[in-house]
Formats: sequence, C-alpha cells, structure tokens
Amino acid sequence: MKVRALVMEFLGTGLIIAAVAGAGYMASGTTQDAAIGLIMNSLSGCAMLAIVIRLGAKISGAHYNPAVSVVLLLAKKVDGKTVLMYIPVQIAGAIAGAMLANSMYGAHIYAISTNVRSNSVFIISEIVATAGLVWVVLRNAKNANKVAIYVPLWILSAYFFTSSTTFANPAITIGRVFTQSPVGIAPSSILRFISAQFVGAILGWALYGFLTNEPESDQAAASDPVI
Amino acid sequence: MKVRALVMEFLGTGLIIAAVAGAGYMASGTTQDAAIGLIMNSLSGCAMLAIVIRLGAKISGAHYNPAVSVVLLLAKKVDGKTVLMYIPVQIAGAIAGAMLANSMYGAHIYAISTNVRSNSVFIISEIVATAGLVWVVLRNAKNANKVAIYVPLWILSAYFFTSSTTFANPAITIGRVFTQSPVGIAPSSILRFISAQFVGAILGWALYGFLTNEPESDQAAASDPVI
Amino acid sequence: MKVRALVMEFLGTGLIIAAVAGAGYMASGTTQDAAIGLIMNSLSGCAMLAIVIRLGAKISGAHYNPAVSVVLLLAKKVDGKTVLMYIPVQIAGAIAGAMLANSMYGAHIYAISTNVRSNSVFIISEIVATAGLVWVVLRNAKNANKVAIYVPLWILSAYFFTSSTTFANPAITIGRVFTQSPVGIAPSSILRFISAQFVGAILGWALYGFLTNEPESDQAAASDPVI
Amino acid sequence: MKVRALVMEFLGTGLIIAAVAGAGYMASGTTQDAAIGLIMNSLSGCAMLAIVIRLGAKISGAHYNPAVSVVLLLAKKVDGKTVLMYIPVQIAGAIAGAMLANSMYGAHIYAISTNVRSNSVFIISEIVATAGLVWVVLRNAKNANKVAIYVPLWILSAYFFTSSTTFANPAITIGRVFTQSPVGIAPSSILRFISAQFVGAILGWALYGFLTNEPESDQAAASDPVI
Repeated sequence: MKVRALVMEFLGTGLIIAAVAGAGYMASGTTQDAAIGLIMNSLSGCAMLAIVIRLGAKISGAHYNPAVSVVLLLAKKVDGKTVLMYIPVQIAGAIAGAMLANSMYGAHIYAISTNVRSNSVFIISEIVATAGLVWVVLRNAKNANKVAIYVPLWILSAYFFTSSTTFANPAITIGRVFTQSPVGIAPSSILRFISAQFVGAILGWALYGFLTNEPESDQAAASDPVI
Repeated sequence: MKVRALVMEFLGTGLIIAAVAGAGYMASGTTQDAAIGLIMNSLSGCAMLAIVIRLGAKISGAHYNPAVSVVLLLAKKVDGKTVLMYIPVQIAGAIAGAMLANSMYGAHIYAISTNVRSNSVFIISEIVATAGLVWVVLRNAKNANKVAIYVPLWILSAYFFTSSTTFANPAITIGRVFTQSPVGIAPSSILRFISAQFVGAILGWALYGFLTNEPESDQAAASDPVI
Repeated sequence: MKVRALVMEFLGTGLIIAAVAGAGYMASGTTQDAAIGLIMNSLSGCAMLAIVIRLGAKISGAHYNPAVSVVLLLAKKVDGKTVLMYIPVQIAGAIAGAMLANSMYGAHIYAISTNVRSNSVFIISEIVATAGLVWVVLRNAKNANKVAIYVPLWILSAYFFTSSTTFANPAITIGRVFTQSPVGIAPSSILRFISAQFVGAILGWALYGFLTNEPESDQAAASDPVI
Repeated sequence: MKVRALVMEFLGTGLIIAAVAGAGYMASGTTQDAAIGLIMNSLSGCAMLAIVIRLGAKISGAHYNPAVSVVLLLAKKVDGKTVLMYIPVQIAGAIAGAMLANSMYGAHIYAISTNVRSNSVFIISEIVATAGLVWVVLRNAKNANKVAIYVPLWILSAYFFTSSTTFANPAITIGRVFTQSPVGIAPSSILRFISAQFVGAILGWALYGFLTNEPESDQAAASDPVI
C-alpha cells in the first residue's frame, strides 16, 4: 500500500466535504432562499467531485467513499487490505474536511451538528442515491475521464430529486456530524443513513451485474469512444 | 428481445421522471420563486438524461421515449417488434418513477395530478420541443457520447423557452399523471400533449431527412471528431 | 449554394432567438428577480447555441450571424456570394424565431418592442462582446466540436459581464425588435447596436490575426487534441 | 520573448477580471439576493477562464496569474526571464480589465475600491484556494484541454466554499482594487490576500510533488485519454 494513495483518499474525501459544508456556510450567509442554497451547495460539491476524481484516479483510484470501496471489493477490482486501509482514512479525511470548512468561516473548528434528519423517507432516498452512484461508478470504471463526468452529474441530479439531498457516502455522512453548517447531520441520525447507503450500494452492484453482459461489455470497452 | 433491454428502458424512463418529479417536490418545499424551481427541475432532469443515456446506450439504445422509438422505426434503425415491446415498458417505467418520487417525499404513492394544462399554446410548444429532440437524436444517432451531450442540452434549453416546459415524451407525459408534484399533469390534458408530441416527432424526422445529404453524412461520420 | 444550407441558417438563427425570447417570457412569468431571469435566458440561449452549431456545422458552417459571415469572408473562409445569400436568410430566420416565441406564449405574433436601449455604454459592451465572439470563432474554426463548446461559453460569460447582456449579432438584434418579451429592443436603438457589433467583429478579427502565428497554428491544428 | 505572448497575458488577465467585475455590477443592478449574485459572478468568471485558457494556451501558456508563473518557474517549466516579464503585464492587464468593466457600466473608469476584506479567515481561504488551483494546474499541465476544464471547475467550487470567494491570483487581487463593483477590494486588504496566495501556491506545488510519482506520471501522460 503506497502512502500517497492513502494521502490522496484523505485529501479527496476532505475536499468533497469542505466544498459541501463550506458552500453551506456561504449560502446561509448570503440567501434566505433554501433552493438557491441547494443550488450553490450542489454546484460546489459536484465541481469538486470532478476535480478530485481527476486528481486522484491514478493515485488511489479515487474512491473517497467506503460504500464504493466495498463494492469494488465485491467486484474484485480492489483487494480487502486496500479497503481496510482506505475506509478509516476516508472517514478521517471527511472529519478533517468538515473542520477545514468550519475554520474558513470562523466557526468553532470542533462542533457537533444538531441537525436531526430522522424522517424515514430519507432511507428510500439514500438507497436510491447510493444505488445509482454505484451503478454509474461500475459502468464507467474502465475510463476515469467518464467517471469524472458522470459521477458529478449523478450527484447533481440526486441532490435535487432525493428528499435527503443525497449523502450517498458513509464517510461524508460521518464527517457531516462535525460541522454546524446547514449541511450537517446530528449523530443520532447517521446510523439509518449509513445502513441505507450500504443497502443501496449492494443494490447498485446487483443492478449493474444483471444489466451488463460481460463479454459484450469487455469488447465494447476496447472501442469505447472517449468523450 | 433481451430482457435486460426492457429492464433498462423501464429503469431509464423511471429515473428521468423520478428526477423531474422529485426535484419538483424539492423546489416546492424550498423556494417561493417559480423560476428557481424550474432551474432546479431542469438541472436534475437534464443531468439524469445524460446519465441514463450513458448507462443504457449499449443495452437498449436508450430510447426512454415512445416518440423516439417510433421515429427510429420510421428511420429503419429499429424493428417493429422492438418498438411494440419498448412502449409499454417505457410507460410502466414512467409510472413507477413517478411513484418512486412520491415515496421519497412521503406523499401518497398512488396519486392523480390535478394540474390542468389546457392552454392551447402548449400544443405549439410540444411540437417544437419534440421536433427538436428528434432532430438532435437523429443527428447524433451514430455516437452515443454525443447523444448524451446534446439531448440534455436541448431539453435544458427547451425547458426554459417553451411555455409548456417541454414534456416531449408520451411516456413521461403519462407518468406525470401519477404524482402531485408540481410537475404533474391532469389526465384531461394529456391527449393534446401526446398528439402534439407525435406531430413534432414526425416534423423533426422530416426536417432531419431534408437537411441531411445522406452520402456526405455517412462519409462525415467516419471522420466525425469525438468530442 | 445549396438550399439546405440556407434553410439551416434560417432555422439555426431562428432557434437561437426563440430560445432567448421564449426564456424571456418564461422568466417574466415566473420570477420577480431580474438576475434569475438573466440566468434562465442565458442558459437557454447558450444551450441552444451549442445545439445549432452541432446541427448545422456540416450543412451551412453554422454562422447564424452576419458579423461572423462578414469576418469569415474577410478571412477568406467563405466567398462573397455565400455571405450575400446568408445575411438576409439569417435576418428572416431571426424574425421568424421571435414570432415563434411570441406564439408559444400566446402573445401577438407580430409585435414591435418598445424596449429602448439607448445607454451609450451598451456600445462599448457590444464591441467587446462581438470582438470576443469573433476571436473565439476564428480560433476554433477548424474544429466544430470546439466551436460548439467555446462559443456558448463566451456568450454565457458575456451575457453577465457586459451591460448590454450581449446581443453580438446583427440578425438577432433585428429579430429582437419583433417581440415584446423582455429581451426585445426598440427599433430606434438597433442602429447603434449593429454598428458596434461590426466594429467589434473587425476588432476581433484583427486581434486574432495579430496573435496568431499562422505557420505554427497550422502545424498545431494537425495535432490539435480533440476535447 | 515574443510580444504576442505578453499581449495574450495582458488580454487574458484583463478578460478574467472584466468578467468577474462586470458580472458584479450586473448582479448589483438586478438582484437583492447576494447568493444569486455570487452564482452570476462565478458562472461568468469560470466560463471566461475556460475561454482564455483555450485562446492563449499555445500563445503564452495561459498563466494569467503571478502565483502560477512563479510555481511553473519552481517546477522548471518556464524560465525566470519569462516570469519577470509576465508578472507586470498580468498586473497591468488586470487593472485595465477592471477599468473596462467600470466603463461598460458607466462607472468612473478610475476608481479605488472601499471594500475592506480584513477578516483573518480569508487568509485560510486564500491558502486553500490557491493551493488547489496550483495542484490542478500542475496535474493537467501537459494537456491544455484539461486545464480548460478543471481550472474553471476548481474556481467554481472554491468560489462558493471559501469564505473569501477565492481570489487566488495576485494580479487579479491588485486589479480588483480599481473597481467599485462589489467584487472590489480595498488597498489596505490586499497584502494579506497576496501573501496567502503565495503560501498556498507553494503548498499546492509541494502537494503535487509529493503525490506524483514522476516516472509513472510521464508514462501515464503518453496514454492519457483525451476527454
């Protein structure tokens, strides 16, 4: 395991949450319209996703998400040791990224969100959001340029159409505990989010497997036109 | 007919309407400004269009739209049996997608829209919207990557410039009956929408045929620079 | 001169103004915030620009703009006869497109704008907007895919940073006379706009000529990486 | 040193600030919602960044930023003489661009901003913003098309998630002194911004160096898929 892969997972996950939480602070300071705040958050987060996928694809594979790492293990694209090392680093990076956002806005660096998100419909939303994310990742896994296009597009769409605004990432969910930005989540709400995310991840993996005729897909990949 | 093609048409059409209807719920809960709601809806729907075209292009051809399927039949790019099987699946997927959006926002899963859209100018809008969509599809039919770029761009533009906000899809029109999201449409209004969509589709097909010098086009396609 | 090239210029120019004027009507019906209206207009117009460049590049060269046609004549990329036939068709298309927008919103199909735009700072804005547009067109002229990316980006940027909201097109300027959408322009104001646009076009052509070392450029074009 | 490279640096830097400052004026005249103003500014500025990188990449290398020029010197990609000539031209271009924006909105062409930005959290923001910018530039330095995609995406994200709205450019920081657009900065505040930017630039350079295994990177570049 190269150290630089772990550093990249730490930084990438941290930058994603810094973008979302920082834009949350910015929105709360500049608008009364919650929808404009969501647009601002989602643009910042999705642009950042594209960037960190580009920056890290050749260094760590640009997972930044324990649910993605676990699915790539199931799909035999990474080994178990990598996943075991990535997950704690992703969580640590997410917490650090939330603290960075706090510090850029002069809030307490260490803070615990009081934003309870207990509505049971969020569970359906997180299952859908994570299933789609995993499907998009697996479909494009052979071409990092496409991952950098379609993963941010999925999150952009899901941010607006799911009632939970799409966390879709257990590390980011934990990191969001550590900010009082409006994008935070109270500790009491995270277990249902994370459970739903892993259910969605497995569902996305199964969907992709069912829909993909592997031999055809392999052959297609060779001639896959590059966007 | 492979089952997975039908499943893909079901899921793709369902995800499009889930994105539009879900974002409609989100907008109605977060802003008073109808224009911001439209921006949110259109971003969510257009990002989803790009994704499902990417996900399904090699599986089902990524029609997700009976008007597109019929035109591709006229253009002899698919056979009649495929179209006959795709259309009911697209409609079923659209209804399921509307119900998914309802469930993600805690609304009644089964609901009928009361949103009457009877203004006759919507007919002109739907003709224009569908004609352009079909033109864009046919122009890019040999390159799925370009379909995934230009179809969402067409819908994004048309969403704002047509007075109907561009349904441009008979299956989606039927699916939108089954939601009380602001993007819904009352059953009494759908016949005029669907009729206009098929008129527009034929117009778009005729326009493309007139404007395309086939031999030159074939030769051009071979050297078509990939975006 | 092929008829289909003229039809394409007519349709392309018409669709651009239909997008801008239609979105103007949509904005005036859905928001009180003028900035949101501008965002809606610009997204609709710029997405449409990308589409009509894609649709028409191989048919007519996708000028849709008398200032662009004149500069391409000066640059010896088209002949005088083409330009003489394109310009009236572009103007006719722009007027028809404005009328289409009027009809989609139930306004009088024939209308004359009363929107006086007499501020002299608009002249500086239109010079800058058209100079940049021409520079971008000439820089990318060998690659239609790049024209379809960078021309809309230029207009998107210029829409917000110029005080005139960037007409940058004599045909579109004339077409905008024929709508009462907020994007219209009163007949008394168009002469200064059009004059400034041609001054800007010449300036953009000169800038490009000065900055481009032709031999290097030719060699570069051969290996020009496709986006 | 070719004159045209210096002219390109002057024009490119000037256009970036014209876009940001002009959109600032536009926002202040069209909306009361500061968040919408930020969205407008950032769209205008980021679209312009993509354009000037495209226009200037083969002419001057498209630096437009003294912090980038200095890092490219440290990375031995440009020589000291070039940097010494670029920096004053970038600053002059930025001042001229601010004046152009002033003139397009009928403000005094020469003006000094009174917008004090003294909050110490802006220092953290500028370090993060410039470090990321330099990392993105270095990662993509061998492919101008990717610089034109990922640099604007970085700035778009950072515009919303940093509390300073991301100046990330000493020349632009100085240019912003010369406008009363809301994006201006009072002279008393620029020293801390510029210092933070150079600290961030060095940090970004170090990060990139640590994370990049040069031999692998060279080999990867050869087969780097073109987006």
